[in-house]
Amino acid sequence: MNDEEKKVMLAHGSGGRLTQELVQSVFAAGLGNPILDRMEDAATLELQGRLAFTTDSHVVSPLFFPGGDIGRLSLTGTVNDLAMMGAVPLYVAAGFIIEEGFPLAELGRIVTSMREASREAGVQVVAGDTKVVERGAADGVFITTSGIGLIPDGVRISAAAASPGDAVIVSGTIGDHGVAILSQRQGMDFEVELRSDCAPLGGLVRGMLEASRRIRVLRDPTRGGLAAVLNEIAIASGVSVEIDEERIPFRPEVRAASELLGLDPLVMANEGKLVAVVAAQDAGRVLEVMRSHSLGSEATVIGRVETAAGERPRVFARTILGSRRILSMPSGEQLPRIC
Amino acid sequence: MNDEEKKVMLAHGSGGRLTQELVQSVFAAGLGNPILDRMEDAATLELQGRLAFTTDSHVVSPLFFPGGDIGRLSLTGTVNDLAMMGAVPLYVAAGFIIEEGFPLAELGRIVTSMREASREAGVQVVAGDTKVVERGAADGVFITTSGIGLIPDGVRISAAAASPGDAVIVSGTIGDHGVAILSQRQGMDFEVELRSDCAPLGGLVRGMLEASRRIRVLRDPTRGGLAAVLNEIAIASGVSVEIDEERIPFRPEVRAASELLGLDPLVMANEGKLVAVVAAQDAGRVLEVMRSHSLGSEATVIGRVETAAGERPRVFARTILGSRRILSMPSGEQLPRIC
Repeated sequence: MNDEEKKVMLAHGSGGRLTQELVQSVFAAGLGNPILDRMEDAATLELQGRLAFTTDSHVVSPLFFPGGDIGRLSLTGTVNDLAMMGAVPLYVAAGFIIEEGFPLAELGRIVTSMREASREAGVQVVAGDTKVVERGAADGVFITTSGIGLIPDGVRISAAAASPGDAVIVSGTIGDHGVAILSQRQGMDFEVELRSDCAPLGGLVRGMLEASRRIRVLRDPTRGGLAAVLNEIAIASGVSVEIDEERIPFRPEVRAASELLGLDPLVMANEGKLVAVVAAQDAGRVLEVMRSHSLGSEATVIGRVETAAGERPRVFARTILGSRRILSMPSGEQLPRIC
Repeated sequence: MNDEEKKVMLAHGSGGRLTQELVQSVFAAGLGNPILDRMEDAATLELQGRLAFTTDSHVVSPLFFPGGDIGRLSLTGTVNDLAMMGAVPLYVAAGFIIEEGFPLAELGRIVTSMREASREAGVQVVAGDTKVVERGAADGVFITTSGIGLIPDGVRISAAAASPGDAVIVSGTIGDHGVAILSQRQGMDFEVELRSDCAPLGGLVRGMLEASRRIRVLRDPTRGGLAAVLNEIAIASGVSVEIDEERIPFRPEVRAASELLGLDPLVMANEGKLVAVVAAQDAGRVLEVMRSHSLGSEATVIGRVETAAGERPRVFARTILGSRRILSMPSGEQLPRIC
């Protein structure tokens, strides 16, 4: 059997010789570093200070998509959650659940993507685990990543820290990841390829924090999209948020595909974008720094925080015609396995 | 619909309103603590020193078994990996991958087990994630836990630290978890119930480290069992290990079930046992401390470390008849989903 045809077998998950071979030939070969290579039951890290710690499971379907794959996604997803606390992402652990029969060559591609994304993000994969389940008990590969980052002194980012008057910024075009995945699933063909925006945001955030210590909130609008994140911020901070719909940047092809598919891009997942709530007087400076970064070149102020006095925290979208509608927390959308 | 009949729906994984409801009603209600309750993108922790960091995916089938369930197992599995580095386990993050249609009541039972195990282990669950996949794309629930622990000053535990002359200790009976799971799967009925040994080992390890600073290696013999762990130690340390088969403690019912099922209990998973390699002069003291702990009451010296000079690192088992056989790294066993 040549390498192309080799498959993951149940015995690769047994904890014995084949598990060791898989770990050495795929995971250590792809992701190795002095900490991972020790192959102890846990990685040993030297760290001092305030840490951010997070986990995310990834079940995206299809596993490979324009702009990324589950390997890149699982690395950036966790790194971005750390960055949204203002932390410098440092270490990642990855748990793989693999369906029996999954091609080893595809697993290798996924691990290579993780390595590339970890280099972009400046993190090391220091611990891992592999389980194999019978054919039909999982769909291809699921990857759960967890991460540790270090929060610089003085940085206090929280979804609960938005105040009336603050500016609401998005770092770029909205809906790219979700629309790319869904149109690939539907087998839609556009003249321009729809690509996921999947990218690690730690570098962008570092620049923003150097420009201002009055960044109140950072969130990456993944599942549930911009609508979910703005509602979460409103609720956590006890404020209302008003955005101008016409200021939200969209790729024309994302807008076109959304219309064709009957999707609202405001609830579509993003995997390389952030929402920032920033003190109004610092908004210009933060925007400038963001626009000088490749992942923030289309950063835009889309709205501001308002008092929720006398009413429940809400998100309002001012439409192009000037009317104001409530942008609610998405509910009941059937968009499984977007990330 | 009453609570008994409620099921997890795809929309529970959408990131919107139903995700929030699930997180609040099941996860926050079951596992809540001041850090988790903040519901930020990552937990914030104050820690100083050498940390241990690990992850493990859990795909055990069946989800509920005598002595535990996937909730208890996923908590203890990760906590034990931290303890095997000599670390004091502190924080856990949990990623759930749930199959559409999974009963909410069962999810609640699993979360309750995690809470109980986290109390026994003295850890907090501080971060989590939930994904829902379509019916048939996963089998019930998979849980990936990751954990952070603090390694006390001066503690240097490593699979590579065994030296000739050291004593090899097991903390109790071998094979309990694996044989319990497999006989439940086979629908076998014994007069005495076969129970998993699933338990958090942090407290036992703490006592051992107080008794001796010459504990070289700690490993929990999970997948691949005692045979795999002894081989890993031999290879990592470049030594041979010789054990006396008749000294290995077994529950009589585990021995009986193994014979009936044609299984070798030395390759069966354990989830509440450890193997320790200890300097010979401290072995008595360590054993005494272990035996005074409920999880180490049957601790036994089963063998010792030898020079591998002139030959490959190997594990030898001295049989009851006095002959010596090679105990090899398990290979090809088809025991999927044991943990």
